[in-house]
Amino acid sequence: MAKNIRRIGVMTSGGDSPGMNAAIRAVARSCAYYNIECIGFYRGYQGMIEGDYEELNARSVRNIITRGGTILKSARSKEFMTKEGRQKAADVLKEAQVDAMVLIGGDGTFRGGKALSAEHNIPIIGVPGTIDNDISGTNYTIGYDTALNTVVDAIDKIRDTASSHNRLFFVEVMGRDAGFIALNSGIGAGAEEILIPEEDLGLERLLDSLERSRRSGKTSSIVVVSEGDKIGKNVFELAEYVKKNLPDYDAKVTVLGHIQRGGSPSCFDRVLASRLCVRAVELLLDGKQDLMVGFVNNKVETCTLDEALQSKHEINKDLLRISDILST
Amino acid sequence: MAKNIRRIGVMTSGGDSPGMNAAIRAVARSCAYYNIECIGFYRGYQGMIEGDYEELNARSVRNIITRGGTILKSARSKEFMTKEGRQKAADVLKEAQVDAMVLIGGDGTFRGGKALSAEHNIPIIGVPGTIDNDISGTNYTIGYDTALNTVVDAIDKIRDTASSHNRLFFVEVMGRDAGFIALNSGIGAGAEEILIPEEDLGLERLLDSLERSRRSGKTSSIVVVSEGDKIGKNVFELAEYVKKNLPDYDAKVTVLGHIQRGGSPSCFDRVLASRLCVRAVELLLDGKQDLMVGFVNNKVETCTLDEALQSKHEINKDLLRISDILST
Amino acid sequence: MAKNIRRIGVMTSGGDSPGMNAAIRAVARSCAYYNIECIGFYRGYQGMIEGDYEELNARSVRNIITRGGTILKSARSKEFMTKEGRQKAADVLKEAQVDAMVLIGGDGTFRGGKALSAEHNIPIIGVPGTIDNDISGTNYTIGYDTALNTVVDAIDKIRDTASSHNRLFFVEVMGRDAGFIALNSGIGAGAEEILIPEEDLGLERLLDSLERSRRSGKTSSIVVVSEGDKIGKNVFELAEYVKKNLPDYDAKVTVLGHIQRGGSPSCFDRVLASRLCVRAVELLLDGKQDLMVGFVNNKVETCTLDEALQSKHEINKDLLRISDILST
Amino acid sequence: MAKNIRRIGVMTSGGDSPGMNAAIRAVARSCAYYNIECIGFYRGYQGMIEGDYEELNARSVRNIITRGGTILKSARSKEFMTKEGRQKAADVLKEAQVDAMVLIGGDGTFRGGKALSAEHNIPIIGVPGTIDNDISGTNYTIGYDTALNTVVDAIDKIRDTASSHNRLFFVEVMGRDAGFIALNSGIGAGAEEILIPEEDLGLERLLDSLERSRRSGKTSSIVVVSEGDKIGKNVFELAEYVKKNLPDYDAKVTVLGHIQRGGSPSCFDRVLASRLCVRAVELLLDGKQDLMVGFVNNKVETCTLDEALQSKHEINKDLLRISDILST
Repeated sequence: MAKNIRRIGVMTSGGDSPGMNAAIRAVARSCAYYNIECIGFYRGYQGMIEGDYEELNARSVRNIITRGGTILKSARSKEFMTKEGRQKAADVLKEAQVDAMVLIGGDGTFRGGKALSAEHNIPIIGVPGTIDNDISGTNYTIGYDTALNTVVDAIDKIRDTASSHNRLFFVEVMGRDAGFIALNSGIGAGAEEILIPEEDLGLERLLDSLERSRRSGKTSSIVVVSEGDKIGKNVFELAEYVKKNLPDYDAKVTVLGHIQRGGSPSCFDRVLASRLCVRAVELLLDGKQDLMVGFVNNKVETCTLDEALQSKHEINKDLLRISDILST
Repeated sequence: MAKNIRRIGVMTSGGDSPGMNAAIRAVARSCAYYNIECIGFYRGYQGMIEGDYEELNARSVRNIITRGGTILKSARSKEFMTKEGRQKAADVLKEAQVDAMVLIGGDGTFRGGKALSAEHNIPIIGVPGTIDNDISGTNYTIGYDTALNTVVDAIDKIRDTASSHNRLFFVEVMGRDAGFIALNSGIGAGAEEILIPEEDLGLERLLDSLERSRRSGKTSSIVVVSEGDKIGKNVFELAEYVKKNLPDYDAKVTVLGHIQRGGSPSCFDRVLASRLCVRAVELLLDGKQDLMVGFVNNKVETCTLDEALQSKHEINKDLLRISDILST
Repeated sequence: MAKNIRRIGVMTSGGDSPGMNAAIRAVARSCAYYNIECIGFYRGYQGMIEGDYEELNARSVRNIITRGGTILKSARSKEFMTKEGRQKAADVLKEAQVDAMVLIGGDGTFRGGKALSAEHNIPIIGVPGTIDNDISGTNYTIGYDTALNTVVDAIDKIRDTASSHNRLFFVEVMGRDAGFIALNSGIGAGAEEILIPEEDLGLERLLDSLERSRRSGKTSSIVVVSEGDKIGKNVFELAEYVKKNLPDYDAKVTVLGHIQRGGSPSCFDRVLASRLCVRAVELLLDGKQDLMVGFVNNKVETCTLDEALQSKHEINKDLLRISDILST
Repeated sequence: MAKNIRRIGVMTSGGDSPGMNAAIRAVARSCAYYNIECIGFYRGYQGMIEGDYEELNARSVRNIITRGGTILKSARSKEFMTKEGRQKAADVLKEAQVDAMVLIGGDGTFRGGKALSAEHNIPIIGVPGTIDNDISGTNYTIGYDTALNTVVDAIDKIRDTASSHNRLFFVEVMGRDAGFIALNSGIGAGAEEILIPEEDLGLERLLDSLERSRRSGKTSSIVVVSEGDKIGKNVFELAEYVKKNLPDYDAKVTVLGHIQRGGSPSCFDRVLASRLCVRAVELLLDGKQDLMVGFVNNKVETCTLDEALQSKHEINKDLLRISDILST
């Protein structure tokens, strides 16, 4: 099959993440290096369905490695979830003479890719790009490291004012289903408490812990709250609850929101994106398909898309223990 | 009176701001340079009342110029608002042989200082330190420039993802009574709309404007919302309202909160703090009092505390026009 | 004449500076707002001579406000210094039906513009864009504030390691003819010594001062050196000289170079660029020409290009005294 | 032996690196958590010899996680390389009732630690802290990730101006013996060429490659040069050589120097430092000694100090190939 690859398509899909541009660049430059053509589809599967694409040569990805976001834009496509939608997409790919696709995104992206591959026999390779780090088959997803730095940088700023004022701060970070961002940024920022979806701390224990912090001489505390935390209150309700129960505390809230998806990617994310995407192109040229490239144990590795989708990337619960020790 | 100044006190009070440490350093170093002693009071007037202070020599302010927050911490003191509280503070100052005070903060700080000066004849000089830039008698308050950079940096990150996704973002920034931060960071970040306390845009015009942006080819919009905006809804309600009325938009919210008060001060704020505080010490040594130092028309100037307190620092409404032109 | 303005050209020339893109955007958006056309010339006067230009509409400057550099690129053109070169440029302007020009750059740019205006009666407005802040008729040039933050951020990092190691660091910053960057970044970074072109400290006094710093308990020192400093040695020779004469010191050198010209512009520079360029377009529409817009005493003002070119923007030597006091 | 551990000492030694403070904090907090005492030695082995130390409790390391440098300062001690020096150090440790040491630093630090342990039977655990990433037994050393981000951020700024001006930039980065920083930051920054100590590109091939870049349509190029590169010229000579041989190029030089050792540590470095140092304390409490903790294959692991010192951490030469592909 490898002989047939003359033109590779690339797209970004799902929630965007810093480093996606580095990934697009690596696909386009690898294609140029191996003398094949590269086509970029806009707005993920939706652009594929609509035939919204453009040729990417080595120069058209100039300087994008430094930029957040994705020059190909990203979207979620409902139409692609239907058989008819995927048929349209396959027709576009055929017409555009795209022999294989590199798909940059998360679970939903890969699920769509699998269906496309199964129904229309289009070789695809998935590249994990999401700030959530919740993909199995890789230790790190593209964008996660940058998001951690963004969160830590924000909390550092809050810490400046926290230590001036003897206050309690709640910082909501992304992670509806996975606590990776909260847990690692919480340790990195020296948060006093970290609330994640995977573990229910309980309101009582939160109050106890904050009281203990205070008695141990801490003049202010920072609580990192994952969007999807189990405690059953949103971050504003949580702040109100604590204020009512610990009246000495003055509780303030920050909701970081989409700041976490943007920003110039860290060196780690750029190198990760570069390495994974060079490999993705080489795998396609080698006749491989239905794989995801990942960074496992400090090496670029592959797994099947099925493996990537079957299991969940679990957080390391030992980090909760580390956080406890360090917020002594 | 100048002959009597052997020991100068310094404190930070009210909401803290980046550059306060640079200000403290400049007071301490100026004192060292002129061979007088310097005392730092912790937690503003509250620490003054409680006798919570420490000598600051040239070395004790080493390296703090780079840091956000205030090593002297900041607080609001209810007790100081009473005559009895101020009496206690005056007693502490007398006992500590403090001949004059440099007060770093905002309106409330200066009002307290005036009372202290009037009732107990203590020479004071005010230095405007607040991110809100709402002090008359200076074009810039210490911390304002840094806060603007922090907001712009955050919105830049949102912009990365906004341009990937065709969305509408609401970003709440500080400014309960004054729109300086919203207006200038909004222009700096290229926001499509800016809502400030000084001007009621109105919900209808907001919807109109967002629709117009869309029709003009903008694929995403950012609305900067001052905490104290006149539109009468908090930022989450606003987002809901827009979503209901412009169903094609996917509206997301970021609440920057206390991030804006922290961070390493910009060069502008460091130089501003340095220049104002050298002058503050020199004014005291010159026998001056009841003044505020400010940066007016590119020079360090002084006004009376009364002048600083009597009028309001008005925003430049022409900037709203500039913003309109630039979000074309 | 104002009636005739249907198409305005814009270009960036000379050393580039952060905020030039914000300036280009403001010109393009102002033109769109006033329903006139906008043309961007690439590579300054060279692109003008070569007819290398493109139409800029409101959308073509999308998102560039956040980016360093200039999308129009910048260059110095020898050909334009000749009458023949300028004739070619004027011919191109005529052919392209450009009625007036906004010129973003420094001295050299304005000198070229004056000649073009005088010889070919083309209305021009100059906008001061350079990191050096050495233009008369404005308190701040576009890019200067960002460059200061870049330098201060770099020196802060050096300070981290300096205070770990008891060392002496020399940091060379830009400024061949003017000490603005060195002086203000030196104060902002808390440098122990600042060497600028305007003032010859002398090698002996430098050694004395470093010795005094050490005796006063400082464990490390940072010397900011302007490229064009008067001391007559380059920064590496200077470090060697000090090492030889103060053998206890371990002297290290950093040459910041072109880092200072890049980076995302600060909020200050973005707002400055925006305000100056809206005004520049409005002046042209008003029939004005041969002016430079500047920011003077906290307001947008104009002066003639002659005034901007005749005198030199002088540093405030009182800042050297401030630096002395603060490095006590 | 574990029963005997009542007091653990910690120090930082060798070239400092961002994250050393996070490491110190983790040692101090772990000790507090396990109810043992913690002593911090200043200036590495030199402070140990001189008895320059201080107790560190949970509060004394408050907020240092955010800061570059090391609160314990760092130094290289010649005296400690002698048996007599180490005897003095051992005497101090005995007198201070220090039962075990956590040593944060590089090769030299560990070699010193081994001698101390061998001669005086003091349990020690090494923690790899250096920006150079040249330690065997760990995939990442503390500070390396931050240094990469610092370099990439600097080169991004240069890239802004490079793409404005069609120039050639040489950027010298740290790494006398190891090309980790140059290689990874070079890929992260999208450098056109990377010169490292491990591989001699040769001057001819450098010129060829730069010419090829130009012909392929690149308007500017960035060359990252490791301090210890094999090409046999310093970075200024290299720039001169290229200028002479490729006269169309305008070559500029930046020497990043000690900027790379400073700065607030990245989240990665903070979490790494935290996890390694919690483990270091727990290993000592478990009776282990003469080990180094490292991060290997995404897990905290240990090796003997001998293993860490015997082999060299090799760069992944496949990254040179990746760099070639991506600079197409």
